[in-house]
This record gives sequence, structure tokens and C-alpha cells, in this order.
Amino acid sequence: MKNLAKKLMVSPGSHVKLSALDASDTHGVEKAQAEEQFPQLRDRLGVLQYLLYAEGRRALLVVLQGIDAAGKDGTIRHVMTGLNPQGVRVTSFKAPEGTEKRHDYLWRIHSAMPEFGQIGIFNRSHYEDVLIVRVHNLVPKSEWTRRYRQINEFERMLSDNHVRIVKFLLYIDRDEQAVRFRERINDESKNWKFSPDDLKEREHWDEYIQAYEAVLKECNAGHAPWYLIPANRKWFRNYAVAQVLADELEAMDLKYPKATLDLSGITFE
Amino acid sequence: MKNLAKKLMVSPGSHVKLSALDASDTHGVEKAQAEEQFPQLRDRLGVLQYLLYAEGRRALLVVLQGIDAAGKDGTIRHVMTGLNPQGVRVTSFKAPEGTEKRHDYLWRIHSAMPEFGQIGIFNRSHYEDVLIVRVHNLVPKSEWTRRYRQINEFERMLSDNHVRIVKFLLYIDRDEQAVRFRERINDESKNWKFSPDDLKEREHWDEYIQAYEAVLKECNAGHAPWYLIPANRKWFRNYAVAQVLADELEAMDLKYPKATLDLSGITFE
Repeated sequence: MKNLAKKLMVSPGSHVKLSALDASDTHGVEKAQAEEQFPQLRDRLGVLQYLLYAEGRRALLVVLQGIDAAGKDGTIRHVMTGLNPQGVRVTSFKAPEGTEKRHDYLWRIHSAMPEFGQIGIFNRSHYEDVLIVRVHNLVPKSEWTRRYRQINEFERMLSDNHVRIVKFLLYIDRDEQAVRFRERINDESKNWKFSPDDLKEREHWDEYIQAYEAVLKECNAGHAPWYLIPANRKWFRNYAVAQVLADELEAMDLKYPKATLDLSGITFE
Repeated sequence: MKNLAKKLMVSPGSHVKLSALDASDTHGVEKAQAEEQFPQLRDRLGVLQYLLYAEGRRALLVVLQGIDAAGKDGTIRHVMTGLNPQGVRVTSFKAPEGTEKRHDYLWRIHSAMPEFGQIGIFNRSHYEDVLIVRVHNLVPKSEWTRRYRQINEFERMLSDNHVRIVKFLLYIDRDEQAVRFRERINDESKNWKFSPDDLKEREHWDEYIQAYEAVLKECNAGHAPWYLIPANRKWFRNYAVAQVLADELEAMDLKYPKATLDLSGITFE
């Protein structure tokens, strides 16, 4: 769908009120239409990924954020499956542990950066350091407020150095989360994903929303934009993320590199 | 010697004229005195390093820069030998290659960061990306000029996140470099270190001085200060670096952590 990406992108400088958002919105896209177009969209992503790899001078970093059960794992599974895994590196960031805790919070993030020519996918990211960290007061307010600037400068540096950053906030509403938690509990193939901690986190819903709204306001530059994906409908979430990624890669105007040697004299005997 | 570190520190905001500096200056320290005190100084460094490790909440990053033959390797050998190698991580940054070239220039720097509790020593550093890169036009001017800000923000972030940064510029003059190059050529134990490239770099002396002066002006904040070490006299260089490091570690006011468990009931049978 034309212009879907533009509709989903959060304009830098704007103040999003997440609670006013309809998480079931599909921006006029119909399910049948999305499901028909989705395979072509994935193929297009595969072609663009190969161009990114061939050019080898820039990287694409995809940041996936969302409250518990918003569909981060599902998005990766559905949208990224068509990509050549040699050119993709998925990193899941859990609560920092071991050697990670003995560094600044951006250290593990920087270490996981995709090489030029590659797509890096972050399942959670440095944004947790101004989300869960804020909600649970894991560091003093004076410390996490400084992180907005640190994150902005970090992302600016990456962008200046040929890393395109695309950030997704998968947004489900509170009712949908309840539905998905019940599913997880009742479904043998999913109940391993459920933890009593999830219910504790759910009690902090409003604080998370507030923390996400702050992120969308404080850390949303043109070189590292947020896309806000209404994610109650999984089919729409997948379609929208794939569409945005395809548009973003297309906008990079990727080119095959020119041969640097004169190949005209080469013969095969 | 009292206050030596203060004398050697470059005041933020000042414009250093390197060519006006006497590289043989010893700031009133006498050789016999320095050689007598040096072993105690190294012992003190060892004690402070253990405190840093025990506390385990902060890191010390030591950046060593200097023109060819200024004595970076020698400083590490002489000053750091007394430290517990388990708590020290030396990283030498050569011209970026392989996977390093497929990332932004700060990526390998960030990856090499010492863990909290440790001392990291950088033999050359991200400053090469505004020194050799500038002198040889390896990236356009518009790109390396932006790096001053990027480096400042990067170092500020590290500092905000418990990494103390101490930077040394080992300064020898042009005559001393000639002496050392001749030594390298004539000394079997040193001639492997000499490369014809060193002579080519020497032709760019004035441009390097200019690039270093810019670094001292643009990237010198109180949280990541430069110390300018007159380095013609090796004994003074070693003494001065050890003295600065000891003073810096002392200023961190390192403390053994308090026991978090009540150990009073524990008995051994």
C-alpha cells in the first residue's frame, strides 16, 4: 500500500498520546489484500537485502520495541524469515547480566551492531534502559534522563557513520495483552513464554505507556525514526513492518558497486 | 612529586602550541629522585588497582597517543608491568581491517572498553580517526570535523556511565624522533619495529602537530582530560605517567564494598 510507511512514521517533534491510539487500526488495509501482497513484499525485501550486502558500505539496524506480548518475536519470525540469514543478525537483549553489567549500558548495544552490508535486528534494545529502568527505578532519575541525550548522540553517530536506524514500536492495548496472556497460559506451545513476572509488569501498564511516550518525544530524529505499529492485528503488524522495511531500504538507493579492475582483458581458457 | 599531575594536565579550553613545548622538560624532577621513587609508585598503583577491582563499579580507561617512536609501547612496558594482568586489558589499535572497516570507527573502540573494576589501556585509539585520518585525507574534511563532537559525546557517555578516562599525549620533538629511528635501525632488538612508512610519516610532522593541537583544543573535557607528557627523557615519561595514574586513581576515592549478607552466623566445621 502506497504511503503506509509515511502514515506510520512518528513525526519528529510530535507528542504522541499512546492511549488515544486505536491498536486495532489497519489504516485502511484489508486483511485479504495484505495476505495476498505479503509474499511479494518478502521477496522484495530479499532483493533489497542482497543489494545492501553487495554494496557493503552501509548497514540497516532494526529496533523492535513493545510491551510484553506485543509481538516482537512473532514479527521477526514472520517478516525476517525470507531474508538470507548470512546477512542478518538478530540480537535479543534481556536484563543485562555478567560482563554486560560491568560496562556502560550502550556497550552491549554497540558490540551487537550489524556490519556494513548487513541487517541487524534488535529484539528489545538500549530503549529498555529508559523504559523498564525508568519504571522500576533501576537507576536514579538524574541518570536515566541523561540517557535520552546519550541515545540521541549515539544514534546520530551511527547514522553519520552509515548505519540506517529504523525503530518500531509495536503497540497493543491492555485488553489484547490479557487475551494473549490467557492464550499463552492455555497453549502448551506458548506457556513456556509466560512468567508470573509478566503479570507484575502488567500492573505498571500506565507507567510503561508514559515511558514510551517520553521515548517517542525525546528520541525521534529523522535519521533514526520511530514507526508506530498498531499491533492488535498480527497480519497488519507483519504487513506494516515489512512495508516500512522495504520502503526504507528502497530509499537508501542501494547500488551494485562498480568493478575497480579493468576486466576487459580477462579470458577464460 | 606533589602537583606534577596538575602541571601536566592540559586545561580545558586552552590552546596548546606544541612546537613551543620543550620535550626534554622534566618539570624540576631529577632523574635520581624519580628512579628512587618509581618502585614505590608502581606498588601504589598495584594497591589502587586492587581497590578498583574490589569495588567493581567503575573502570579506568588510559589512552596513549603520540607520534611514531614517542614511546607508547615503552610506557606500557615500564609503567604497567607492576599491575595484575587479570585486571588490565591492553588494546593496540592498528589501521582498521576486516570486520572493523565494516563498522563505524567507534565500534572497535567501544568493544574494547574495560569492564568495571578493570583498567583498559589503549595503545593508539579513536584519536587516530582525527589524526592519521586527517593528515592523509582518509575521509573528507566534513566527516572528520564531525568526529570531534562524536568523540566528545562518546567520552561523555562513558564518563556518565562510570568510566574514568585519562589521556596521555607523549610528546617528543623532531630531533629525538630521528635519534630513535636511527637506534631502531642499528639495534637488532629494535629494527623489526622500523618501517620505511615511518620515514614517510615523518615528512608529515607539521601536519601531525597541527592535528594534535586541534585534538587538545577540541576534545579535552574535565571528565576526559589530556595530560601532555614531555617524553624525550624516558625516565621522566615513565615517572610522570605513573604519577598521573596514581593521582587519578586516588581521586576516584575507591572503597572496598560493604558485605551485603550478614556473615555473623556463618561457622566453619
